[in-house]
Amino acid sequence: MIPPAIAHTQPATAGLLSLLAATPQPPDSQNESSHSQAWKDSGVIDLSRSPHAKLKTVPVRAVTIQEGFWSPRRKTNLASSIPTMRNELLAHGRMDNFLRLEGKSSAPQKGPVYSDSDIYKWAEAVGFALQTADQPQLRETTAAMIREVVATQEPSGYLNTYYVDDRKPLRMQYDTQTSGHELYCIGHLLQGAIACYRATGDRTLLDAGIRFVDGFLLPNYGPGPNQKGIVAGHPEIEMALVELYRTTGEQKYLQLAGYILHGDERIPLRPQQIAYMYCGSPFTSRTRLEGHAVRAMYACCGATDYYLETGDQAYWKTLNTLWDDLTRHQLYVTGGVGAREAGEAFGDPYELPNARAYGESCAAIGMMMWNWRMLAASGEARFTDVIERALYNGINSGMSLDGTTYCYRNPLAFDPSGNASDRNAPEGLIRNPWYDTTCCPPNLERTFASVPGYFYSTSPKGVYVHLYDNSEMNWHLHDGNGLKIQQATGYPWSGQVKLTVSPATPAEFAVFLRIPGWSAKNSVKVNGTPVNGVRAGEYLAVHRKWSANDVVEMEFDMTTHMLKANPAVTEDRGRVAFQRGPIVFCMEHIDQPDRLDRASATNLSAYAVHLDASTNARFDANLLDGVMTLEHPGTIRRTSADPGLYYPASAAVETQEIPTTLKLIPYYAWANRGPAAMQVWIPYLQV
Amino acid sequence: MIPPAIAHTQPATAGLLSLLAATPQPPDSQNESSHSQAWKDSGVIDLSRSPHAKLKTVPVRAVTIQEGFWSPRRKTNLASSIPTMRNELLAHGRMDNFLRLEGKSSAPQKGPVYSDSDIYKWAEAVGFALQTADQPQLRETTAAMIREVVATQEPSGYLNTYYVDDRKPLRMQYDTQTSGHELYCIGHLLQGAIACYRATGDRTLLDAGIRFVDGFLLPNYGPGPNQKGIVAGHPEIEMALVELYRTTGEQKYLQLAGYILHGDERIPLRPQQIAYMYCGSPFTSRTRLEGHAVRAMYACCGATDYYLETGDQAYWKTLNTLWDDLTRHQLYVTGGVGAREAGEAFGDPYELPNARAYGESCAAIGMMMWNWRMLAASGEARFTDVIERALYNGINSGMSLDGTTYCYRNPLAFDPSGNASDRNAPEGLIRNPWYDTTCCPPNLERTFASVPGYFYSTSPKGVYVHLYDNSEMNWHLHDGNGLKIQQATGYPWSGQVKLTVSPATPAEFAVFLRIPGWSAKNSVKVNGTPVNGVRAGEYLAVHRKWSANDVVEMEFDMTTHMLKANPAVTEDRGRVAFQRGPIVFCMEHIDQPDRLDRASATNLSAYAVHLDASTNARFDANLLDGVMTLEHPGTIRRTSADPGLYYPASAAVETQEIPTTLKLIPYYAWANRGPAAMQVWIPYLQV
Repeated sequence: MIPPAIAHTQPATAGLLSLLAATPQPPDSQNESSHSQAWKDSGVIDLSRSPHAKLKTVPVRAVTIQEGFWSPRRKTNLASSIPTMRNELLAHGRMDNFLRLEGKSSAPQKGPVYSDSDIYKWAEAVGFALQTADQPQLRETTAAMIREVVATQEPSGYLNTYYVDDRKPLRMQYDTQTSGHELYCIGHLLQGAIACYRATGDRTLLDAGIRFVDGFLLPNYGPGPNQKGIVAGHPEIEMALVELYRTTGEQKYLQLAGYILHGDERIPLRPQQIAYMYCGSPFTSRTRLEGHAVRAMYACCGATDYYLETGDQAYWKTLNTLWDDLTRHQLYVTGGVGAREAGEAFGDPYELPNARAYGESCAAIGMMMWNWRMLAASGEARFTDVIERALYNGINSGMSLDGTTYCYRNPLAFDPSGNASDRNAPEGLIRNPWYDTTCCPPNLERTFASVPGYFYSTSPKGVYVHLYDNSEMNWHLHDGNGLKIQQATGYPWSGQVKLTVSPATPAEFAVFLRIPGWSAKNSVKVNGTPVNGVRAGEYLAVHRKWSANDVVEMEFDMTTHMLKANPAVTEDRGRVAFQRGPIVFCMEHIDQPDRLDRASATNLSAYAVHLDASTNARFDANLLDGVMTLEHPGTIRRTSADPGLYYPASAAVETQEIPTTLKLIPYYAWANRGPAAMQVWIPYLQV
Repeated sequence: MIPPAIAHTQPATAGLLSLLAATPQPPDSQNESSHSQAWKDSGVIDLSRSPHAKLKTVPVRAVTIQEGFWSPRRKTNLASSIPTMRNELLAHGRMDNFLRLEGKSSAPQKGPVYSDSDIYKWAEAVGFALQTADQPQLRETTAAMIREVVATQEPSGYLNTYYVDDRKPLRMQYDTQTSGHELYCIGHLLQGAIACYRATGDRTLLDAGIRFVDGFLLPNYGPGPNQKGIVAGHPEIEMALVELYRTTGEQKYLQLAGYILHGDERIPLRPQQIAYMYCGSPFTSRTRLEGHAVRAMYACCGATDYYLETGDQAYWKTLNTLWDDLTRHQLYVTGGVGAREAGEAFGDPYELPNARAYGESCAAIGMMMWNWRMLAASGEARFTDVIERALYNGINSGMSLDGTTYCYRNPLAFDPSGNASDRNAPEGLIRNPWYDTTCCPPNLERTFASVPGYFYSTSPKGVYVHLYDNSEMNWHLHDGNGLKIQQATGYPWSGQVKLTVSPATPAEFAVFLRIPGWSAKNSVKVNGTPVNGVRAGEYLAVHRKWSANDVVEMEFDMTTHMLKANPAVTEDRGRVAFQRGPIVFCMEHIDQPDRLDRASATNLSAYAVHLDASTNARFDANLLDGVMTLEHPGTIRRTSADPGLYYPASAAVETQEIPTTLKLIPYYAWANRGPAAMQVWIPYLQV
């Protein structure tokens, strides 16, 4: 029953095992040498020993984000989001669930079946935050919480506060595996544990995770005749197990991840379940994205992780097929995915509704994490373009500017008078401080906390620059030569980026500069000399001998584009979206100089833009913490009377087009000034 | 805690009670006298004594549908649908659930919590069918099933096969009331029982229903200090209780219906539950349609029934507000309602997606039943227009032409390559013989079986003619004068209708002729003489002295219309729908003379129609059991290459418009030739 992929990779992993025979460094090691295996040197994911990773991650702590676009977001994350989310977790009994099992609380179990994961995801956000910020109090508070968590672990290694007492017999039953989220919780425990370990060297939570896997999971679940079947009802454990393998060198974790990705035929599953869970049949048999979007994205993360370690070409083929499906049929212009509210699911090809867009924050994050892995496997900038689209737009929209409220859904149009609520937002608001299913808030927090880790990669040839913001990287090339890169830029508002590249010792290597796919005209100069061969949507490899303070000056094309969607996207027909640089814009009712009355405002489609006019961009330092705004000539369409719901096409409906100027703001900043009508896709005047 | 409405109506109901003092006729009575209160003389609902019903129903059996549009549908319903659905019910353990409790089956409980209602709804379909068809075997089979059902009734009157054994303590707990469907099942039991009683006079199931209400429900649930709270988690019991009041004359049933419609403040409900269930707060406080569409429609039926008996103006005001919301914002051009799959719910105003339309068959049926009650209360043809739109299109689409498969969802566009499945259609097909939640199939069967009951009404002034098809009515006016009306017509394919009106004794009265709202030009002649004052969307009252064989000749305008939707319906922008007479059309890929290749066919939006061309209608007797087809000039848009998911509006996308002729079929007949791409709203060429 062992999937063929494992067998194929035996030679590779055998070699890998010998490589891993070296004793791991003690957690308190301060060794920063270039080939150190220490906890401090690992990136968002640790690809340092992954044989099929063309690019290697750079530690989060190696990159310091300075004043610029991401800095206020990250400061707010640390100062407001992470502490207020802790308060919310406590207020909603998420720690009491653990304390009760220790006899320290008499509160009843609270929250859905996956509530333990809320703590683990928050701990992961803390772990990433502590990798760049010295916060002794946060560190100690979190360590204390982790001690309470670990205290509830059973001698068998089992750890879950929901499947206790009367529910104990349900543990890991097949029905529980498909819907009970036990392994989902452990996956998040492991990810949180690893982020904390990489921040502080503290193995407390990590060891608990290992005890679960070694003591409870591996002996009882797997292909063996005395083992029971295993399925990830909500994928997450796969990528966690691969990261545990990367962290410990223990191949058994990689094997189990592969086994889960292959699916266990002993578990009876309906086709609908296999589609919805995105697990339970061989991952390599998938041909399209479907089912629950977060599940599918996490499964793709795990599968790419598995490929990065094994090089299994069947996985790589499937992953590329799925990525084509993503980018050809399923991706919102904001980088959101999972269009359908019912089942929080991927829809049909081109099913991309606007007001009813689900676009769960977690799904966009999972999509970005998957593309990060695809980028590492390939070194191709098309993946970075997708990462950037999601990060700056459909993920960035998920957290309010003050860092205390969050979007679960990220629609592309909004009518505040409408029935906008969903099961997760009982108050009908789009931004809320808490959801009973509170996956998105800590997921957003971990993403902003880990952003520095997405700026650079290294390869045997040199260094890759993926993202642009004022920042300083201090890391090294594969040969150990120290490397500092300073970025000075007004990105994403400005297209000018200045890099100062300073190897410790002058050396010949390549700096791979990402030329964004959206930038039509680009120029790159090194120490004032133009570089040829710059192509949008690719990495420009600048091979040369680099010395301290070499300067790279880039200029990207910040022309605002109106985008059309494929005609098959029915809701976007006759509409355009505005994009300038990586930023996708939207119009909110509140900003329009000639506002419709309140009744008409709920549906903004009475506004229309002129296709043949040009857009004026203006930075407004006082608006929404400082944003670029767009102004574009358009009209307000007034009709003499409501034509009714349906009317003959031959009927004369008197319409009047009143000239106006439409004002747009970045999509990520919407809904920060109370509920207001919003749309990304704006009707255009037919000519 | 008794809602004020009850108190207001005490005088009316007191008078009513004295009227009802007459002993009911024995079930085997053959008395057909004009003022008989016998079971045989009641209509789809019995409004004969409803003080606020301007129109009175005509018995289903009084109208014989002859060869024409509805005849094959109704024959198939009786010959195929009802028998095959019985087999499905048996195969899926729905009768075993009862037999088990009698010790006659060892099968475990099967099906969801509301599975008893499947039997009751099917029994209701049989009841209506037996009102016009003499089917001794079906009658006896059904009676035998009913005997098994009734045998499981407990001495307390309680009857439900799900809340037994371990689940007994959950009975009527507040959580169970909101989601356990006990009263929903009893509501359907009562409706099924009344339909059977009105067919055969057999009171077996009716008496069981009365025992439940009298023995179990009324003593324990209600406003009294020793009673517990009551809420309809899925409205249905309200209209069933009013019909039970109409059938028995017992005012207590009407009072309980009013109490449930008012809501019981003692039951703690979240705002979301109150919205979703459409129950739990005063019905008269509602201002819009929201939540689960079938629940909302059934609640509106119950509330209108309550108004018909009490005349409570607060109800009438609310009902009209909700109807405006329905027709201004929420109604598909097919007559479907409940746009949103998530929660099977009404969406925001103008949220009317096409491919993702939910449009559950049951919701359209509930919507038609509500409009039937509004029509009775008002005598206004705008309600009949809505009834006709739903009946001929969005309800009619719910059953396959062979009568053995059913739509749960009724989308307005379909892509067979897509992920069309929903939780109710595990195989991903749009028409299925069985759903685990099998509400729609028997609901469609009862609708087709009861269609004759919707053709006519009477009032003190005369007779109303609502629907047109070859048929013969044999009934009487309020003064007892016998009345026969013969219809001869090719409706809905032809606009010519000939009525032969024959009172038993020549008399002065009015024939109210419905002039459909879609018909722009109309002519009406009586015995060859034109009648003036004919207005579309109204009843034309022809007051005169009528004698045997008086002839009314009507001609409606069968010009095909292209309809546009309100611009706020984002998915319909730049598209038109075709309607001819009451029939809404669609295009299926299979019919197009110049078909796109298979890959492009899944999204039909490459086809476009010319707005300024005229449509050719042609009857095809060999297609889909005989349908009118439409042909309209259009184009196929071919683009040089896939422009991608998003592309700059300024990009030159080479498109070629290839002239073609689009062919359309009636929407109700779609998906009868295997899965094929379909769309109701077709793009038009911008001029």
